[in-house]
Amino acid sequence: MTTNRRNRRIVLASRPQGKPTTANFRLEEAEIPPLGPGQVLVAIEYLSLDPYMRGRMDDAKSYAKPQPLDETMQGGTVGRVVESNDPSLVAGDAVQGMLGWQTHAVASAKELTKVRPGLPLSVWLGPAGMPGVTAWHGVNKILQPQAGQTLCVDAASGAVGSVVGQLAKAAGARVVGIAGGPDKCKLVVDEYGFDACIDHRDPAFADRLKAATPDGVDRVFENVGGPILDALLGQMNPFGRIAVCGLIAGYNGQEIPLTRVRSILVNKLLIQGFIVSDHPDEWPTAVKELAGRIGDGSLKYRETIAEGLDQAPTAFLSMLGGGNLGKQLVRVGQDSR
Amino acid sequence: MTTNRRNRRIVLASRPQGKPTTANFRLEEAEIPPLGPGQVLVAIEYLSLDPYMRGRMDDAKSYAKPQPLDETMQGGTVGRVVESNDPSLVAGDAVQGMLGWQTHAVASAKELTKVRPGLPLSVWLGPAGMPGVTAWHGVNKILQPQAGQTLCVDAASGAVGSVVGQLAKAAGARVVGIAGGPDKCKLVVDEYGFDACIDHRDPAFADRLKAATPDGVDRVFENVGGPILDALLGQMNPFGRIAVCGLIAGYNGQEIPLTRVRSILVNKLLIQGFIVSDHPDEWPTAVKELAGRIGDGSLKYRETIAEGLDQAPTAFLSMLGGGNLGKQLVRVGQDSR
Repeated sequence: MTTNRRNRRIVLASRPQGKPTTANFRLEEAEIPPLGPGQVLVAIEYLSLDPYMRGRMDDAKSYAKPQPLDETMQGGTVGRVVESNDPSLVAGDAVQGMLGWQTHAVASAKELTKVRPGLPLSVWLGPAGMPGVTAWHGVNKILQPQAGQTLCVDAASGAVGSVVGQLAKAAGARVVGIAGGPDKCKLVVDEYGFDACIDHRDPAFADRLKAATPDGVDRVFENVGGPILDALLGQMNPFGRIAVCGLIAGYNGQEIPLTRVRSILVNKLLIQGFIVSDHPDEWPTAVKELAGRIGDGSLKYRETIAEGLDQAPTAFLSMLGGGNLGKQLVRVGQDSR
Repeated sequence: MTTNRRNRRIVLASRPQGKPTTANFRLEEAEIPPLGPGQVLVAIEYLSLDPYMRGRMDDAKSYAKPQPLDETMQGGTVGRVVESNDPSLVAGDAVQGMLGWQTHAVASAKELTKVRPGLPLSVWLGPAGMPGVTAWHGVNKILQPQAGQTLCVDAASGAVGSVVGQLAKAAGARVVGIAGGPDKCKLVVDEYGFDACIDHRDPAFADRLKAATPDGVDRVFENVGGPILDALLGQMNPFGRIAVCGLIAGYNGQEIPLTRVRSILVNKLLIQGFIVSDHPDEWPTAVKELAGRIGDGSLKYRETIAEGLDQAPTAFLSMLGGGNLGKQLVRVGQDSR
């Protein structure tokens, strides 16, 4: 059954010098191997594009090993089982897994998670997937915002930031987003219900942040770093907490120095770097809450969907430049049928 | 009884522009007021000189309110009760309190802590006082070093750093100190029993730090900040912790940027700023352990003692420049008799 299909995949062709370009990627075709015991063939429907992938393109120390050259770009996917050699999955089952930038994958059934029916498949890569659980961990396990406190989150319109703000609002906090450009800020306030959103491209950003946080800042969910984090450090209240989830400003190799370091001492801040994959035990609890909120309509989300596997590199570069609104996905479904 | 004595005190005459000088201080004489109900007269024996006092000389946001101009310099003291209007204290009792840079003080008995006999009075300002409890909190409540881990502490020969290292050694950690100059480094290894000590004035400091921490760094007790903290960030292991107790490098007004910010994310670091006065409930437990270790000789300490109240400003400036070996004290006993 697999022999008459071919897989299409995107590999890392070369490591970027500074900003990545489409020349760093290559589209390839390959045979789909026969299934071994316990394996299934998955037709991938959606790829997830995430900022962390930029870090792995370099041959540098980061969370995980670098993305190997000439191998399929790693990343989260959701798809449907086409053929199964394992009793736990049957053809037609929807599954989530790290299957990478390709149309088909042969994987061990153990590496896949069957997703529950009733929600659109793409949410398992967004608000009910890794970005949502990342937000859930930062808010519930690190920041624990209290009613009346002020929480700030940057990249606020993104897949993580939008969930952070909505969970913090549900906890009773005043939530101020930071995003790039008026369209994203409008989305954050109008659709996600944040109390305010500041455009970090505004030359008066620091003053606007102060004006939007008249009682100071108690909690920060940090996705960006650099001058935004510096401005936030200047607004922190005593015993404030900062969850460091991303420092996208440094992804092209340059470290961006932090100036307001004294705030850590003066305000007795707690700063905690984290990555959600260190906490697999929390996943079921987090997903249950997130999927419930998606199902009842209380957790809003947006997606930017690129059509076709060959668009993945362009969509990835656009996302790194902030070109997406909400979760950036690639639909590869039509390739796989 | 109090009318035939006069108090001598040092007040803040002006706020420093950059580096403080002796011209920022003024020696004054004043009548000792009569005792009110519940008050005692204390003849001060020792003043404590501490880096945090530099921060309070500025009119800027810090832990506490700024030191008021033309008022007695605030600070920790130990002395003996001369006259008492409170049943809890009698003449001759040794007491610890924040009585400031002066020879005598009239204070409420409630603000004073009677110290237990058997140890030299000065230890209640050093290893059994605020510096010791600061070290105890950072090590036991924040860093919690495990056997086999590597802990680094800077200002390692100082009143706080020397206790940090000895407590961490007792917990089974490998302890590497950082100090300014070969004499301090020698003291740290030979007398306090650290495994190694690196001179931060050495041009090859960063390389020597790497060589002294071949398994990386798991715990940092940070008293200094700036380039030393940057070097430590570059050596951190995953899930490392940094207790931020002081950032002396910024005390003259300049913020020193931190460059290796990415380590917070990549290594999922916990960074916690703290000040010991936020945790008064821990004081009795900490003091009991520290005094016990001083009594049985297992906790070593050194003091640099300036003679006479009028020497306090010079001794303070010398301490800020690293001129002291161990806890910097001023003996004012001879002034008060």
